[in-house]
This record gives sequence, C-alpha cells and structure tokens, in this order.
Amino acid sequence: MVGAVPVAAALPIEYRSRSTPPNPEQAATDIAAMTEEIVTELVVRGECERRDVLGVGVGCPGPLDLETGSILRTPNLEWDGFPVRDRVSDALALPATLDNDGNCAAYGEWWRGAGKGSEVMIGVTLGTGIGGGLVFGGRVVRGVIGGAGEIGHMTIELAGRRCGCGNEGCLEAYAAGPSIAARAREGIAAGRVSSISDRVDGDLSRVSAETVSAAVLDDDAFAIEVMAETGRMLGAGLAGLVNVLNPDRIVVVGGVARAGESLFAPLRDEIRRRAFANLAQVCAVVPGALGGNAGVIGAAGVFLAQQAGEV
Amino acid sequence: MVGAVPVAAALPIEYRSRSTPPNPEQAATDIAAMTEEIVTELVVRGECERRDVLGVGVGCPGPLDLETGSILRTPNLEWDGFPVRDRVSDALALPATLDNDGNCAAYGEWWRGAGKGSEVMIGVTLGTGIGGGLVFGGRVVRGVIGGAGEIGHMTIELAGRRCGCGNEGCLEAYAAGPSIAARAREGIAAGRVSSISDRVDGDLSRVSAETVSAAVLDDDAFAIEVMAETGRMLGAGLAGLVNVLNPDRIVVVGGVARAGESLFAPLRDEIRRRAFANLAQVCAVVPGALGGNAGVIGAAGVFLAQQAGEV
Repeated sequence: MVGAVPVAAALPIEYRSRSTPPNPEQAATDIAAMTEEIVTELVVRGECERRDVLGVGVGCPGPLDLETGSILRTPNLEWDGFPVRDRVSDALALPATLDNDGNCAAYGEWWRGAGKGSEVMIGVTLGTGIGGGLVFGGRVVRGVIGGAGEIGHMTIELAGRRCGCGNEGCLEAYAAGPSIAARAREGIAAGRVSSISDRVDGDLSRVSAETVSAAVLDDDAFAIEVMAETGRMLGAGLAGLVNVLNPDRIVVVGGVARAGESLFAPLRDEIRRRAFANLAQVCAVVPGALGGNAGVIGAAGVFLAQQAGEV
Repeated sequence: MVGAVPVAAALPIEYRSRSTPPNPEQAATDIAAMTEEIVTELVVRGECERRDVLGVGVGCPGPLDLETGSILRTPNLEWDGFPVRDRVSDALALPATLDNDGNCAAYGEWWRGAGKGSEVMIGVTLGTGIGGGLVFGGRVVRGVIGGAGEIGHMTIELAGRRCGCGNEGCLEAYAAGPSIAARAREGIAAGRVSSISDRVDGDLSRVSAETVSAAVLDDDAFAIEVMAETGRMLGAGLAGLVNVLNPDRIVVVGGVARAGESLFAPLRDEIRRRAFANLAQVCAVVPGALGGNAGVIGAAGVFLAQQAGEV
C-alpha cells in the first residue's frame, strides 16, 4: 500500500494498494509506480507540485536490517536480504527510509491518530499476528538492532500453545486473528449456537477473525464471548507492559480492534485486574483512529522524523 | 544504607547501614546522621573536603511520587505520603533526589558496574521480590508517573500462583526468593535428599533462598535443580522483554544472583529458547558487578544525572 501524506495537513490525501508480488524487485517497481501515479495525479489536480514530494517512507514486516535498509527474513516470501529501501529510493530518485510495520503503525497513531500527545505510548497491531511499536517522547524505541516492539511474543502461559515463532505460550498464540477463529470454530463444533455458522454457510473452515468481528457487531452472544476472551488474553499480556513501561496510552490497531467495546471493555478490565492500580489508572486503552492507514501514515512520519534527525 | 560515592573515582569509599525504624521521621534523621558521620570521617582522613559533597541521592522501594519526592505507599511500614527527599535534604542542608530502588540498582550497574557501555539495558533485582529498572541511552526510563521497571509483575502463567501484588501468575511469584525457598521446602518434604535440610537442622520453615544459594555453591544436586528452575522461570519472563525492548544487556543483581552459573546458564538457555534468535543473540545476560551496593551507588548516580539536567 502506498499513500500520499501531506506534511502540514491533517489527513492523507491519496492511496494506492496492490497485492504483494512474489518477486521483491517487482514489488519495489510496483511501489515506485504507485507512488509516481499518485504524485502525477496530485500535480494534475493542482494539489501539490512535484518539488513538494520530499521522499518515501517504507514500512515492512520485520526482521529488518535498518542500517542497510533491507529485509532480513520473510516467513512466506523469498525476500531475504532484499535492499527494499534503496531499490525504492533509486526507482523514484527520492530519499527513502525503512521501518518495521509495527513501528510505523504505532508512530502513525502517535503522529496523526489516537496517540497524539502521548508521552509513553504502546501501539499494538492486532491481526494475523500481534505486533507493535513503542513511542516514547515522540520517538520510536527501536532497541539495539531495530527489533523492539514484538509485543505478541511475550510468554503469558509457561507451557502454553505453540506460537508461529517457535515459542510456547506467546500472547500472539492466544489473542491474534487465527486464535480468535480457532476458538470460535471449537465452540461451534462443540455445539454453541451462533450466527457465525450462517455467515460461512456452515463451513467452519471459513471462519476468520473478521467473521467473529462481524457477528459481534450483530450482537451475537457467542461471538461477544469469544471477543471478550480475546480482550482478557490481550489484557494479561499488556498488563505486564503497563507495569514495566508505565505508559499513558495503549493504542490498539488492526481489523480485530473494530470489534469495539466487546474487545476493549474486557481488555481494560483485565489490565485493571492485573496491573498496579496507580499505573493502570493513568493508562488509557483506546482503538486506533487511522484504521488500516496507520502504517502508511506512520511510514511517512518516520521518514520526516529521520530527515529531521530524530532517528 | 548510606554510601559516599566519589564523582570521579572508580569505587565508593565508605558505607553505613542501619535497620529501618518504623517512624519515617526517625529514618530521615538516621540517614542524615549516617551521611554526616561519613562526611566527617572522610574530611578527618583528608579524603575530601566538606564542600566536595554535592548532595544526596535517596533510593526507596516504590511506588513513589517523584514530583514531590515522597513515598506513596509502603506495604510493611506506615510511611504513606512521607516526603523523604525533602526531609533528608533539609536535615543535611544539601540538595537531594529520590528514585525507586530498582531504578537506582539498574542505574548503578549501568554507571559503574556490569552495565557499562550498554545502550539498552534491563536491570533485574532478584530478592524477596523481583524489581528492576530500564536504562536506555544512559537514562532511566521512568514512564509517565515514575512507575516503570516493575519487571516482576508480568504475567507468565494466566491462572498461575497468587502474587503479593494481587495478580495471578506474576514472574515474581515463580522466581523470587520466597518461591525459591518454597520450591526447595516442597521438594524436601516430598522426599528429595539435600544438604539444605542439614543447613537448617531439619527445620524446613527456616529454608530461605540464601540457604538454597549456599547449597548450590556446595554442589548440592537438588539445590542446583531448584536454581535451574528459577533461571528458567526468570528466562521465560525476560525473553518477552528481549522481544519487546531488544536490549543489549540484562544485568541481574541481588542475593540470588550470587548462585552464578547454576542460575545464569538455564536463564540464558530459556531466553534463547523463547526469544527471537537475532534478538537473543545480541543480548548479554550477566550478574551485577556491584553486589549489594548497586542501589546506593545508583542513587548517587541518579542525583548527578538529575543535577546535570538528564532527568
């Protein structure tokens, strides 16, 4: 996904999105082409001039090598070692930066969304996996090799469910999309009645976190229960971070966050139940304000911050 | 405990220690008197002049109100709301600062101990409880109300052991001193043979974490097993922080850390087993270098840092 984010105005003004091709060189070409397309259109519409385009911020799933601007490892693609930052920069003849997608989403929400004004913010991306980013004093906390923010991979159950990362009992194994879908499937298979079955025409293999979210919005009691459990699991992990980092805000982004209070009320309850009372009290737990655009807006924000020397 | 920490030299030069009186005014008077005693002695010995004494750094168990320099709540004493910083400052007619004891120990190790040169350091205090402090770029991470660093209160088991903080399954409930003692007692009561029994003349109620540590140093097989389990529990919690914070060093201080490799080898193994490989690889896990003095040295360091404006 590519977006045009004006430096001064309040909102992004144009997006393009394309599915990811298997070949990384092709992906870089696509990104450059979509960016070019947007710029041309904005110039034609008189909304900006070509010289107003300062550069490109790229966000990618980690782990990344931030020094060389390349992708270290990709679970599903053969992009290992691909220098995505410089390929995009070369193709557009514009400066570019690269950051982890979790950091970008967190920074986007801090810069333009639900994290505005926060001094110590935890961003949580809740989707197929659970990622995140930390923004302290307006700067992304990256750790020593840019790997910080992997909020989904804290152990919340010592001998718990196997996680995709190889560990047991990770938060991600309990609260991410696939776990939501699995818990819904298991409940229905065990006889629970829910509109979720109708939504997939009885084919439980098609149940996804989105199906559950949609059923929640229709007041489906079982779906609400599954979402509440998700909130409590997430709260168990985040309560620990409230105690370790003493944040003033936790911003949860991603498709699942759209379930609203069915997710957030139990999430807040669990944080209050587990974290130190004085620390829980000063931490607002809110959904993101930028929807699916947090990452693309944040990537632009990271570009500007790095240009200003606030690495 | 009060120590004299010279700004330039490598080591502290004088200590005093006294048991904590129930009355907080008395404690402040004691601290001032011990400080005065040290200063007088150093002046008499010609090791410093009175005007060389810049001020006093006070370290206290949290939660604290760092703005007013007072203690918010004490579990075992009736010191709630006591303005310890200003009382000590007034009594000595010297400027004073106040910080959490976990932050002080972490900062002390970063400043003068095993954390020297670290960019992203996690300090862990392993004793009756598990506390800690984060030192990023040479500054203590305090969070929005000074509560950060409560490393012992991350959930590592969803419906786990009850913790003193009220939560279930906290790291502290599995790896702190009382848990070490409890696991040793349970094992021996269940028939395990160990020199621990002899050390307490068969009175298992007297078994403490120190008893276990001492038996470990004598190669007691059961004690080594208990310590290894402690290391694995601690590693399960710290692996999550390796993924969230991407530190280059974890420094473990406190009495239990003296168990050496019996604790540290399984601790490192568990972090490697659970954390992302690239993040575990860049993180050294080491015992503190300052022994029981990390906190007092760090309190002095915090004073100097705050005086220099590096709050």
